[in-house]
Amino acid sequence: MKNRAAYMVGLNKMEIRETPVPEPKAGEVLVKIEYVGICGSDVHYFKDGRCGDFVVDGELMLGHEAGGVVEKLGEGVTDLKVGDKVALEPGITCGHCEFCKSGRYNLCPDVVFLATPPVQGCNEDYITFPADMCFKLPEGMSTKEGALIEPFAVGLHAAHQGKVGMGDQCIILGSGCIGLMTLLACKACGATDITVVDMAQKRLDYAMKLGATRVINAKEKDVLKEVEAFTNGVGIEKVFETAGSPVTIAQTPYLVKKGGTITLVGMAADPEVKFNFGQIMAKEARIESVFRYRNLYAKAISAVANGIDIGMVATHEFDFEHIQEAYEAAINDKENVVKAVIKL
Amino acid sequence: MKNRAAYMVGLNKMEIRETPVPEPKAGEVLVKIEYVGICGSDVHYFKDGRCGDFVVDGELMLGHEAGGVVEKLGEGVTDLKVGDKVALEPGITCGHCEFCKSGRYNLCPDVVFLATPPVQGCNEDYITFPADMCFKLPEGMSTKEGALIEPFAVGLHAAHQGKVGMGDQCIILGSGCIGLMTLLACKACGATDITVVDMAQKRLDYAMKLGATRVINAKEKDVLKEVEAFTNGVGIEKVFETAGSPVTIAQTPYLVKKGGTITLVGMAADPEVKFNFGQIMAKEARIESVFRYRNLYAKAISAVANGIDIGMVATHEFDFEHIQEAYEAAINDKENVVKAVIKL
Amino acid sequence: MKNRAAYMVGLNKMEIRETPVPEPKAGEVLVKIEYVGICGSDVHYFKDGRCGDFVVDGELMLGHEAGGVVEKLGEGVTDLKVGDKVALEPGITCGHCEFCKSGRYNLCPDVVFLATPPVQGCNEDYITFPADMCFKLPEGMSTKEGALIEPFAVGLHAAHQGKVGMGDQCIILGSGCIGLMTLLACKACGATDITVVDMAQKRLDYAMKLGATRVINAKEKDVLKEVEAFTNGVGIEKVFETAGSPVTIAQTPYLVKKGGTITLVGMAADPEVKFNFGQIMAKEARIESVFRYRNLYAKAISAVANGIDIGMVATHEFDFEHIQEAYEAAINDKENVVKAVIKL
Amino acid sequence: MKNRAAYMVGLNKMEIRETPVPEPKAGEVLVKIEYVGICGSDVHYFKDGRCGDFVVDGELMLGHEAGGVVEKLGEGVTDLKVGDKVALEPGITCGHCEFCKSGRYNLCPDVVFLATPPVQGCNEDYITFPADMCFKLPEGMSTKEGALIEPFAVGLHAAHQGKVGMGDQCIILGSGCIGLMTLLACKACGATDITVVDMAQKRLDYAMKLGATRVINAKEKDVLKEVEAFTNGVGIEKVFETAGSPVTIAQTPYLVKKGGTITLVGMAADPEVKFNFGQIMAKEARIESVFRYRNLYAKAISAVANGIDIGMVATHEFDFEHIQEAYEAAINDKENVVKAVIKL
Repeated sequence: MKNRAAYMVGLNKMEIRETPVPEPKAGEVLVKIEYVGICGSDVHYFKDGRCGDFVVDGELMLGHEAGGVVEKLGEGVTDLKVGDKVALEPGITCGHCEFCKSGRYNLCPDVVFLATPPVQGCNEDYITFPADMCFKLPEGMSTKEGALIEPFAVGLHAAHQGKVGMGDQCIILGSGCIGLMTLLACKACGATDITVVDMAQKRLDYAMKLGATRVINAKEKDVLKEVEAFTNGVGIEKVFETAGSPVTIAQTPYLVKKGGTITLVGMAADPEVKFNFGQIMAKEARIESVFRYRNLYAKAISAVANGIDIGMVATHEFDFEHIQEAYEAAINDKENVVKAVIKL
Repeated sequence: MKNRAAYMVGLNKMEIRETPVPEPKAGEVLVKIEYVGICGSDVHYFKDGRCGDFVVDGELMLGHEAGGVVEKLGEGVTDLKVGDKVALEPGITCGHCEFCKSGRYNLCPDVVFLATPPVQGCNEDYITFPADMCFKLPEGMSTKEGALIEPFAVGLHAAHQGKVGMGDQCIILGSGCIGLMTLLACKACGATDITVVDMAQKRLDYAMKLGATRVINAKEKDVLKEVEAFTNGVGIEKVFETAGSPVTIAQTPYLVKKGGTITLVGMAADPEVKFNFGQIMAKEARIESVFRYRNLYAKAISAVANGIDIGMVATHEFDFEHIQEAYEAAINDKENVVKAVIKL
Repeated sequence: MKNRAAYMVGLNKMEIRETPVPEPKAGEVLVKIEYVGICGSDVHYFKDGRCGDFVVDGELMLGHEAGGVVEKLGEGVTDLKVGDKVALEPGITCGHCEFCKSGRYNLCPDVVFLATPPVQGCNEDYITFPADMCFKLPEGMSTKEGALIEPFAVGLHAAHQGKVGMGDQCIILGSGCIGLMTLLACKACGATDITVVDMAQKRLDYAMKLGATRVINAKEKDVLKEVEAFTNGVGIEKVFETAGSPVTIAQTPYLVKKGGTITLVGMAADPEVKFNFGQIMAKEARIESVFRYRNLYAKAISAVANGIDIGMVATHEFDFEHIQEAYEAAINDKENVVKAVIKL
Repeated sequence: MKNRAAYMVGLNKMEIRETPVPEPKAGEVLVKIEYVGICGSDVHYFKDGRCGDFVVDGELMLGHEAGGVVEKLGEGVTDLKVGDKVALEPGITCGHCEFCKSGRYNLCPDVVFLATPPVQGCNEDYITFPADMCFKLPEGMSTKEGALIEPFAVGLHAAHQGKVGMGDQCIILGSGCIGLMTLLACKACGATDITVVDMAQKRLDYAMKLGATRVINAKEKDVLKEVEAFTNGVGIEKVFETAGSPVTIAQTPYLVKKGGTITLVGMAADPEVKFNFGQIMAKEARIESVFRYRNLYAKAISAVANGIDIGMVATHEFDFEHIQEAYEAAINDKENVVKAVIKL
C-alpha cells in the first residue's frame, strides 16, 4: 500500500510524491480516494498562489472534492464498514460555536477545510477523515459521482437559500460548473421552468441537455428584453447569479419579479458593484447569498440516486499521472472544460 | 347551445335536466365544462345527504373538480381568451377577511365553494365563473387533467404543510385518490424515498406505478415493524395520514422520526382518536393538518406540464348520461375505482 | 356637517375648501377624521410635484396617515359601530391578484392608495372608507396615535422582514420618523440591544428617550469603528437602513454579522449605489427590503395599547387652518420636526 | 476549598458529603455554584426513583439548573475569565450527529444531561463544565437569576415552537413554574394578550403579577365558555399546554383559532389522550411540541437583562444544609411552592 500525493510546489507546478499511508484515529476512517474534482479555488491557488484572502505559503496539496472507498475503520466507527463507497464533505467544523450549534456550520470560524491554506487537500491515494463527514453512496452510484457531490451541494445550497420549490420559475446567470449544478439543484427541488444564460454556446448546450427549459446566449441577445418578452414584463421569481461578473450581478434587479429572490452564488473578482437598489425596494425583492453549503450531503446523494444526473457535468477526466495537464486544461480551455476530475 | 345539469334529487338519485346557459358578468367567463371528477364529499352527499356539518336540503347539483374551455368573456376579462382550456378552482373567497388578507384564503369563513350546500356544483355543460379562478392549461394538457388539478392541489397542500423538500423520506398511509395525489405531490416537491401503506393490493399496485419507492400491505404485514426494519429504528421524517382511520392516525406517533412531521389529510369519520402524545413530545414531533389548499393551482399545472402524471389516478371514466352509474361505481366498487371522472 | 378639504393647488401651495360630505356605500363607513400625519411622500409631492414615478397632475388632496371616529355605517357593516375610534389603512387592494391571494397585498398592482396621484388623500374632515380597512382603537388610545399607526406599520414591516425576535441585537441607520418607528418596532418584537445612528444629535436624543440601548453620532464618530469595538469585531445580526443615503447603504455590508440580515427601508434619491457584495457573500448575509406593510394594523394597535409609545414620535402638531405652515415646517426644519401631525 | 455534594441515597433521602474539587480540563472551567433550582424531574427521581424512562440506579446527585461564578480556567479557554458570573446549560451534546449539525441539538441521542441517570447533577459547590456551555451573566444579574435561565429557556423554546410574535394573543393552560415561564417568554417575544388558566388561585395571582392580561380559575369557571365569550367565538391563535393533564390537552382543539397553533409543553403522566382531531382538521390547526430547548441561553439572558422578571418565579429559597427540606416542600406544598431554589 503506497500513498501518492500531488503537491503544488510553485505557481503552475505540480509534483507527485510518495508519502506514508496515514492511520485512522478514533472516529476516523481511512479512505482510498478514487476521484477528485478540480474546483475553481484549486485553479486560483495553482495559477495565482491565492484565492480571496487565502494565500499559498510553501507547498500545498490541492483538491477537496473527493469520492473513494473505506479501507480501514478507526476505533468506535460503526456507521461505515470496509468497502463502503463514500463522498467526503471537506469542511470539518468545531461543533461548538454559535454557528455550529444553530445549524449554520458553514459559517464556523474554526472550520478545517481541505486545500485551504494551511490545510492540505486530498489529491492523494489515501486520507484519514472523520467518519461523520464520509457519506455512504448507495448501490449503483460511482465514486466519480461521489466526488461531484461537493459542487452539487453548492448548487443545492443556492436553491435552498433561494427557497426554490415545486412549480417555481428560475433563471440562472452563468452556465459553468456551478451554474449547471444550480440548474440540476433547482430541478431536484421541483422548479418547472428554468432559463440559463451564458455567452458560450457550448455551455448553453450542456444546460439544454441537463434539462433547462430555455437558454439565452447573452453574446447574441439582450437578456433583459428576452426575459421581459417571455414573462410579459413580470420578471422571474427566483434569480441565480453564478457568473460572478459585475455585469450580471447588476442585471439581477431588472430580472427579478416583484416579491422575488436574487441568490448570489458566484464570487465577483471585484467585490464592489454598482447596483440598483431602487429596483429592489420598489419590488420588495430579497437578496440571498451562498457560502459553501450545510446539511446537504445525504440529501444530495439521495437526489442523485433518484436520477439527477450530475455525472454529465464532469466533461473531462484525467489520470493522476496527468494531474499537471488536468490543471492546465482547466485553466486554458475554459469553454470546453466545464469540470475536470482526476482518477486515482 | 343547451345546458344539461345533473341534480341530486334525493339520496342515491341523480336527474339530468336542461337549464338556461348563464351569462358571464364583469370579471367572469363562461366555461364549457368537459370533465368533472367525483370527490369523496360528492359521494357522501349523494348517499348520506350530508358531509360533515353540511346537509343537503332539497336538490343539489354536485361536482367541484372541473376542467373545461372558455366559451365567452365577461366585461373586463383580459387574462383569458375564448378557446383557452382551464381548470376551475372551486372556492370563491371574500378577499377581505383576515384569512384572505394573510394568504390563507382556504380558511375564509365566507367562501362560496361549489357543491357545498347551499352552493350548487358544476355537474353541467356551462358555468359562469370568476376569471381569476380559471387557470389556463398549457398546450398539450387535457381538460381531464384539468379536472384532476383539484385533488392534486390537496396532495400538494399536504406536501407543503409537511414541508416536503428535496431528498426527503416520506410515508403515506392510505393509497386512495388523495393518498396517490399526495405521493405525486411529494415526488413533485423532491422527495426521494416514499413508502405507501394500504390494505388493498390493487391500490398499492397503483402506487408502485406512480413511483412509490416501496409499498406495505397492512393486511399482510405489521407496518410499525416494517418501518422500524428499513429505517434501522429511526422512523420517517414526513408522515402523511390520508386514510382517515382512527387506527392509522394512532399509528403516526410511532412511525415519525425525532423532529419529524405528521400531516393529517384524511378526515376521520369519528373525530376523536386515542393518541400517544408522549411519543410526540419525546420526539419533539409536529402535527400539521390540511383543509383544502391555497395558492396552488398555477404551480400544480406547471408540475403536471413537467411530467407529474396525475392522469393515471383517474381509473374510471363515464359519460354524462351515465352519471348515476358513475356515482354508484364510486360507492360500491371502492377497491377498483380510485377516481371516477365524468365526461360531458 | 360640513367637509373642509385641503388641496395642494400648486407647488408649495395649499388651499382649504368646502366639499360635500360623502355617503358611505355598502361595506363602507363614514369617518370623521381627527388627525392626519405628514409623510415624506406628502412633502415630496408638495414641494417637487412628484415622488418617485408618481407625478401630481392638477390639484391633489394630500395625507394618508389618518385616525378618526366612525360617523355613519354603510349597508352591511357589522364589525364597527358609530363612535368607534379607528385608524385607516390607506391602501385598498384588489383581493384577487396573485399577490393579494398569497398574503402579500402590499405588492398588489391595482392598489388604490390615498394621496398617490391620481388618488386623492385624506386631508379633510370626512371620508368614506371600506370598513375592513378601518381598524378599531381600544379604550384609551387616541386618534392621534391612530394616525401614527401608519408609519409604525412601516417600522413593524421592516422588523418583520428582518425577522427581528426575542433577544436580537439591531442597528438602525437614520433616526428620522421611520428610523424611530423601526426602533419601537424592534423593541415590540423583543430586540434587547438597539443602536441608532444619525448625524443630528437632537434626533439621537429622541432615540435614547424611546429606548435605544446606545446611539452613535456619525458626524463625530466613525460608525464602523464604534460597532467593531462594542461587538468585538463580530458585527450586528440585524442591520436596518432607514436614511436612504448611498453612504449608509454602502456601510451595511461592513456592519452586518456573519449570517445576518440587512433590511433596506429608506428609499435612496439615487437608486444606484456602489456596494460591496464580496462582504455579503463571505458572510452569507441576506438583504431584505420594505415596500409599505401588510397585515400589521391590528397587531400594531395591540402593541401600542401594550405600551409602545408611538405618540412621542409626533414632535409637532398643527391645526387644520395652519396646514400650509405645517408642510413648510416639515420641509424647512427637518432636524427638529421628526413628525408633524394635523389636527382637524 | 472544599466541595460539598448532596446525593440522593434512596427514595426521599438526601445526604451531603464532601468530595474532591475537580480540575478543569482543556476547554472547561471550574464553576463555584451559587444557586441550583429544583425541577419537576428532580422531584420525580427523589420520590419515585424514576422520571419517564430514566431510572435511578444507586446514588444520584440531583440538580441541573445552576448559576455560579467561574473559579478557574482550563487550558485554551479565552471567552470567560475568573470571577465571571455564569448560567450553565446542562446538556452537553455530541456536535456531530445529524441533529447537532442541523441546529436541533436538543434531539442529540448522545447528549450528556446533568442529573439524568447515570449522569450526575450539580447539587454541589464545584463543578467542571465546558466553557461553551457556561453563559456569562451581565452586570447586575444575579446567579439566582442565572439558575432560573434553565426553566425560562423551556418557556422560550415553547414560545419559539409556537412562533409567538409581536401582537399575538396567547392562552397558557397551567400556571406552575413552566406555565409562568411560558407567560414571561410570550411577553418577551411580543405577545400582547395572554390568558392564564389554572385551578389554584394563588398560582393565578402570580400570573397576574407577572403580566397576564387575564386569568381563568378552572375550578370556578368553564374555560371553553370564557374563551368563547371574550374572543367572540373566534378562539385563540396560540395555545400552550403546560399542565400535562389529559383534560387540558383534550381542551386545546376547542380553544385554538382557525389556522392557529397548539404547543404541548407539559408531559402527561399517561401519554395516551383521547383527542378531537376533527376540530384540528376543520380549523387547519398545527400542533407543536417541546423537548427541552436549543440555542436560547444567550438570548434568554439578554431578555432578563432587559427587564423580564424571572426572579419572581422563585417563590422559595433554601440553604444547602436544608436541601432535604427543600425537596420535601417541593413535593408536599405544590400550591405554594412554584419554584424552590437552593443557595450554596
